[in-house]
Amino acid sequence: MRKIGIIGLGHVGAAVAYTLVTKGIADELVLIDKSDQIVQAEKLDLEDTQAGLVTHTQITTQDYTQLRDAAIVIMAAGDISIFSDGKNNRQAELKITSRIAEEAAPKIMASGFDGILLDITNPCDVVTTYLQRLTGLPQQQVFGTGTVLDTMRMRRAVAGELQVSLQDIQGYNLGEHGESQFTAWSTITVATRPIKEVLAQHNTDITALEKTIRSRAWQIISGKGFTSYGIAAAAVTVVQAIFSDAHITLPVSSWNAEHQLYIGQPTLIGRAGVLSTVDATLSAEEQQAFNNSATYIQQNLDSLAASQLQ
Amino acid sequence: MRKIGIIGLGHVGAAVAYTLVTKGIADELVLIDKSDQIVQAEKLDLEDTQAGLVTHTQITTQDYTQLRDAAIVIMAAGDISIFSDGKNNRQAELKITSRIAEEAAPKIMASGFDGILLDITNPCDVVTTYLQRLTGLPQQQVFGTGTVLDTMRMRRAVAGELQVSLQDIQGYNLGEHGESQFTAWSTITVATRPIKEVLAQHNTDITALEKTIRSRAWQIISGKGFTSYGIAAAAVTVVQAIFSDAHITLPVSSWNAEHQLYIGQPTLIGRAGVLSTVDATLSAEEQQAFNNSATYIQQNLDSLAASQLQ
Amino acid sequence: MRKIGIIGLGHVGAAVAYTLVTKGIADELVLIDKSDQIVQAEKLDLEDTQAGLVTHTQITTQDYTQLRDAAIVIMAAGDISIFSDGKNNRQAELKITSRIAEEAAPKIMASGFDGILLDITNPCDVVTTYLQRLTGLPQQQVFGTGTVLDTMRMRRAVAGELQVSLQDIQGYNLGEHGESQFTAWSTITVATRPIKEVLAQHNTDITALEKTIRSRAWQIISGKGFTSYGIAAAAVTVVQAIFSDAHITLPVSSWNAEHQLYIGQPTLIGRAGVLSTVDATLSAEEQQAFNNSATYIQQNLDSLAASQLQ
Amino acid sequence: MRKIGIIGLGHVGAAVAYTLVTKGIADELVLIDKSDQIVQAEKLDLEDTQAGLVTHTQITTQDYTQLRDAAIVIMAAGDISIFSDGKNNRQAELKITSRIAEEAAPKIMASGFDGILLDITNPCDVVTTYLQRLTGLPQQQVFGTGTVLDTMRMRRAVAGELQVSLQDIQGYNLGEHGESQFTAWSTITVATRPIKEVLAQHNTDITALEKTIRSRAWQIISGKGFTSYGIAAAAVTVVQAIFSDAHITLPVSSWNAEHQLYIGQPTLIGRAGVLSTVDATLSAEEQQAFNNSATYIQQNLDSLAASQLQ
Repeated sequence: MRKIGIIGLGHVGAAVAYTLVTKGIADELVLIDKSDQIVQAEKLDLEDTQAGLVTHTQITTQDYTQLRDAAIVIMAAGDISIFSDGKNNRQAELKITSRIAEEAAPKIMASGFDGILLDITNPCDVVTTYLQRLTGLPQQQVFGTGTVLDTMRMRRAVAGELQVSLQDIQGYNLGEHGESQFTAWSTITVATRPIKEVLAQHNTDITALEKTIRSRAWQIISGKGFTSYGIAAAAVTVVQAIFSDAHITLPVSSWNAEHQLYIGQPTLIGRAGVLSTVDATLSAEEQQAFNNSATYIQQNLDSLAASQLQ
Repeated sequence: MRKIGIIGLGHVGAAVAYTLVTKGIADELVLIDKSDQIVQAEKLDLEDTQAGLVTHTQITTQDYTQLRDAAIVIMAAGDISIFSDGKNNRQAELKITSRIAEEAAPKIMASGFDGILLDITNPCDVVTTYLQRLTGLPQQQVFGTGTVLDTMRMRRAVAGELQVSLQDIQGYNLGEHGESQFTAWSTITVATRPIKEVLAQHNTDITALEKTIRSRAWQIISGKGFTSYGIAAAAVTVVQAIFSDAHITLPVSSWNAEHQLYIGQPTLIGRAGVLSTVDATLSAEEQQAFNNSATYIQQNLDSLAASQLQ
Repeated sequence: MRKIGIIGLGHVGAAVAYTLVTKGIADELVLIDKSDQIVQAEKLDLEDTQAGLVTHTQITTQDYTQLRDAAIVIMAAGDISIFSDGKNNRQAELKITSRIAEEAAPKIMASGFDGILLDITNPCDVVTTYLQRLTGLPQQQVFGTGTVLDTMRMRRAVAGELQVSLQDIQGYNLGEHGESQFTAWSTITVATRPIKEVLAQHNTDITALEKTIRSRAWQIISGKGFTSYGIAAAAVTVVQAIFSDAHITLPVSSWNAEHQLYIGQPTLIGRAGVLSTVDATLSAEEQQAFNNSATYIQQNLDSLAASQLQ
Repeated sequence: MRKIGIIGLGHVGAAVAYTLVTKGIADELVLIDKSDQIVQAEKLDLEDTQAGLVTHTQITTQDYTQLRDAAIVIMAAGDISIFSDGKNNRQAELKITSRIAEEAAPKIMASGFDGILLDITNPCDVVTTYLQRLTGLPQQQVFGTGTVLDTMRMRRAVAGELQVSLQDIQGYNLGEHGESQFTAWSTITVATRPIKEVLAQHNTDITALEKTIRSRAWQIISGKGFTSYGIAAAAVTVVQAIFSDAHITLPVSSWNAEHQLYIGQPTLIGRAGVLSTVDATLSAEEQQAFNNSATYIQQNLDSLAASQLQ
C-alpha cells in the first residue's frame, strides 16, 4: 500500500495529487490545506477522474492523524500571490513558507509520522533545513526537490539546442534552487560525450545556453503565473524512487555536512530516504559556485533566524 | 502517430495537454491560445515534465496549419472569469464561447483539417451544434464531451453513497451538459443489479442522491474556481476511444436527428467519430426530461441566432 | 510500498510478474519456484526490462521468509505438461497442484505472512478451498481468480459478436472455473441494456454465443499450449483492487457459506480481501447451474480427501 | 493512430505484442505467423487482457495487406528449437532466419508498406543487412534492435555491482548482437562519473564485471529456454522512439557506411527511422573490437551469400 500526504493544495500540490492519481501511483492520498473549500473541491475533481482509470486512489482530507502511516509527506504549501507584482520576492516567500512550516510541523509529528518528508516549497533549501529542525526527523528522512526540476529544465534546454531527446542529456544543475544555482557542465554528457566537445561541433555558446536554461523557470512563471506540471513531475520522480527503493542519484536538496545546511547535490535516494550523497567531479569554478550557493542559503537561514528573534 | 490539437490553454486545456503528455498518449500536440505568453509557458512546463517519462510528445504552438494532419482537435477555449461573481452565467458564457468558435472555425478548416473536432467548452451542446455549422465538417466528425463528465460524477456519487467502487456503477447522465440534464436511473446498475433494487436495501433516498450528484460540479467550481481534472479525464477517455477505434458507448453530445441539435446521448464512438447513437431504455419520465433538455438547448440556439442578427 | 510474492514461475506466474514490473505496480517481488534455474532466469529477464522504465521493482528469489511483510502472495504453481496429450485432465491437474499447495502452505505461513493469498492455479476452486484449510488464514484473506478471466472472455466474445467495445459489456460468468461454469445472462447488459433485448435485435442465437465463449479458453490452450496473458491480466486486476482498497465487485472464487466451499461468485474486494459476497439476481435456471457447479467442486474436494486417505 | 505489424509470434513476438497492448501503446496490431493456430490463440489471449484496460488495441491476423499503412513492422520470426541442444548455434539460426526473411520480405513489400522495418531476430546484424537488401527499403527505414538489449543488460549488471539504479548507469554495448560485442567502457558513466574512476573506489575488477554482463543472456536462455521480456522491452523502447519522433540515441543495428553492413552503433532514432549515426568516443582498443565485430558480421554475410549460391 502506498500512502502519501500532501500539505498545500495550490497549483503545485494539486498537480502532484493529480499525477499520483491519474498514473495509479498512490493507493491513498491525504490532502490538507488551509482552505476546506479548496481541499474538498480538489478531492471531488480528483475522484471524478477515476471513472476513466483502472486504478483507485482513496482520498481523505484535512486529517493530520491520517499521516501516521504515510510513507511520504509532501510539503507543497505556499502562496503564489507573492508573484502577483511580477517579481520573485524570495524574502517575502520565505516569510510565508516558514510560517506554514512552523504550523504544519508539530501537527505532522503529532500524528506519529515516521516516513519521508519531501519539501517542494520555496525557497526550497532554506525551508527544508528549517523543516528538518522543526520536525526533529532524522536528516536522512527529510529532503527537498532541490535542483531536480532545474536539472530537468537544463536537460530540456540543452536537448532543444542540440535537437536531440532530453534522455540523451545527462548531468546536473546543483546548488540552491534559486538564482545562485549553476549548471555543473563538467557532469553534462550528450549521448555519453562530454558536452563541451559536442557544443564545440555545434558552435553553440555555453553562456547563451546557460542563459536559456535560467530563463526557463521565469518564462513559465511570467507566462502562466506559476509553474505546476514540471515541479509535479519532479516530485513524482522522487516519490517513485522512494517507494521502489530505487537507489537512484537525484540532485535533491539534502543535508550537506560541510556547510551544515540543505542544498541541491547529487544524492542517492531509496526507501529510507537519503542513502548517501554522491560525489560529482566538479571543476574548481563549479565548486566555487556551489560554495557561493551554500553561503547564500546560509544568509537566508540567518535572516530567518533573525526574523524569529523579533 | 497520434497528433492532437488543443485550442485554448486555460485550466482545462492545460490539464488535457498535461494528461496526454504524462501518460504518453499523444505523439504530437499543437497548442493554440489567444495569449502567446500562456501558450509558451505551458509548452515549457509540459516539456519539463518529460525528463521523468520514457515517452516523448512533440509540442508546437500557435500554428493552425499544423492541424492539417491532426486526428483530433479539442476545442477548450473559454473564459472562466465569468464565474468570478460566483454565479454560473450561461448566457454570458455562450456569448464568449460562440465568439471564440467563430474565430477559430475558419482557421481550423483553412488548415485542411479533416479529423474529429471534440468540443469541451460550455455551454457544450449549443457550442458543439454551432461549431458543426461553422466548420461544415460532417456531423459524425463533430461532437462534445456532453454528459460524459456528468456521468463520471454520477457514478462517483452513487459509488460513494453505496461504499463501492465507481467501476461497479454503470449507466448514464443524459441531456444538456448543464442544469437541465438528468440521471437516467433506468440505465443505472450496481454490480449489474438495477439501482432502485439496491437503493431500497440501503434506505437511500433517490432524490437526495440526485441532489448530491448535481451539487458536485458546483462544489468544485465554488471551491477551486473552476473544474479541470475531471473534464480532462473525460476528454482523454474520448480521445483514447477515437485513436483505438474503440466502438465504445459514451454519453457524448452528438447530433440528434429528431431534435436537430447536439445533446448528451449514448453514442458509439470510434476512429471515424460518431458511429451511431445507441438506444437507451428510458422511462416515460426520463424521456420527458430528455425532451425538455433538448428544448432548453434549442432555446439557447435561438438566442444565439438572435444575437447574431443584431 | 507494494510487496507481492509469486509462487510458481511458469508461463502464468512469469506473465504476472512481467505485468507487475512493466506497469510499475509492484515495488518488491519475491519469486519462488521449484527450479532455481528458471527463477534466476526470470529475475534477470525481468530486471533487463527495467532499463526502459521509470519505475523500479526489487526482485528477490527463493526466499519464503521474504513473504512475511508481503501484502499479497499469488499461488501460480502448476504443471502444464498435463495438457501435452491435448486433453484437459483436471484430475491429474488436481493431484499435482494439491501436492504443490501442501508443500508451499506451511512455508508461506512459517514466514509470518498475514496478507492476501490469491490462488490462480487449477482447478481453481478446489485448490483455493484446500489452500485456505492448509494455511488456516481467515477465509476473507484467501480467494482465487475464479471466473474473473471467464468473465473477461465472455465480455470479449459478446463484444465481438455485437461489434462493440468489451467495456460496453457488463455481467458475470459464475460457478466453477472449469467446464461447469455458466454465463449468468440475467446479469449481462450491453451499454446498460439487457443482453436478451439486444441479441433479439441482432438475430444472435444465445446458444451459439455461449459456445463461442466456452471455446475461447480451449482455443488458446490448443493453439499456444497454455494461456498466459489473459490470466495474468485477471490476476493483476485483482491485485490492483487489493492494494487500492477498491471495494470493487469481481467474480473471484470466494468462500460460499451455503455450500461450504470456494466458488466463483460476485465478491466485493478490498485491502482486507473479501469484504462481502454480492447478490446477483439469477434466474432459476442460473441458480440451478450455480448449484450444479458447487456440487461438482464438492465432488472434487471429496476425491481430493479420498486420495489423501490412501 | 499507431499501427504495428509483428511477424512471428513466438515467445518474443508474443511478449512484444502483449507489452504494446497492456501499455496501450498500439492502436492496431497485425499479427502474422506461420502457424494459424498460434496466431489465433495469441490474438484471443491478448484480447482477453483488454477487459482490465482503459485502452483498446484492434488485432487482425495473417493478413499482409494490412501492413500497407503500418508505421512499423517488427520482424520477430525465428525458431528457438535450435537452442534445444543447449548450444547457441548461430549458423543454424542464420539459415532458418534468413529463409523466413526471404519469404516475408516480398509479402511485406507487396502490401505497399513504406514504414520502419525493425528486426529483432538473430543473428540480428546479418539478418537486418539481408532484410534491407531483400526489401529494397531505404537504409534509413530498416534497422535492428542490435545491442540495445545488451546495453540494458550491461547497465543492469553494472548497477547491480555498484548497488545503484540502472538509471544511474549510462553508456553502450556496441558491435554485433552476439559473442563479438563489447562494452564500450569509455562511454560508461555512473551518475555522470566515468566508470573506471568509480570502479577503482569499489575495488571492482572490470574483467569480472564484463564476464557477468556477457553471461547474463546465456543464463536466461539456459534457465528458461529463451529470453523474452528483456528483448520485448528493448523493442518497445525503439517503437516508442519512432512514434514520438524522439531523436534519441540508441545502439541499434544500423547501416555502417564504412563497413557496408548493419552493426550495433549509437544511432539517432526518430519517426523517419535512422536520423544519423552518432559519434562515440572509443578507445583504440574499443575501436578495434568494433572492427573485429564488423569483420565477424561480414563473414556471416559471406557465408549466407555462399549458401545461397548452392
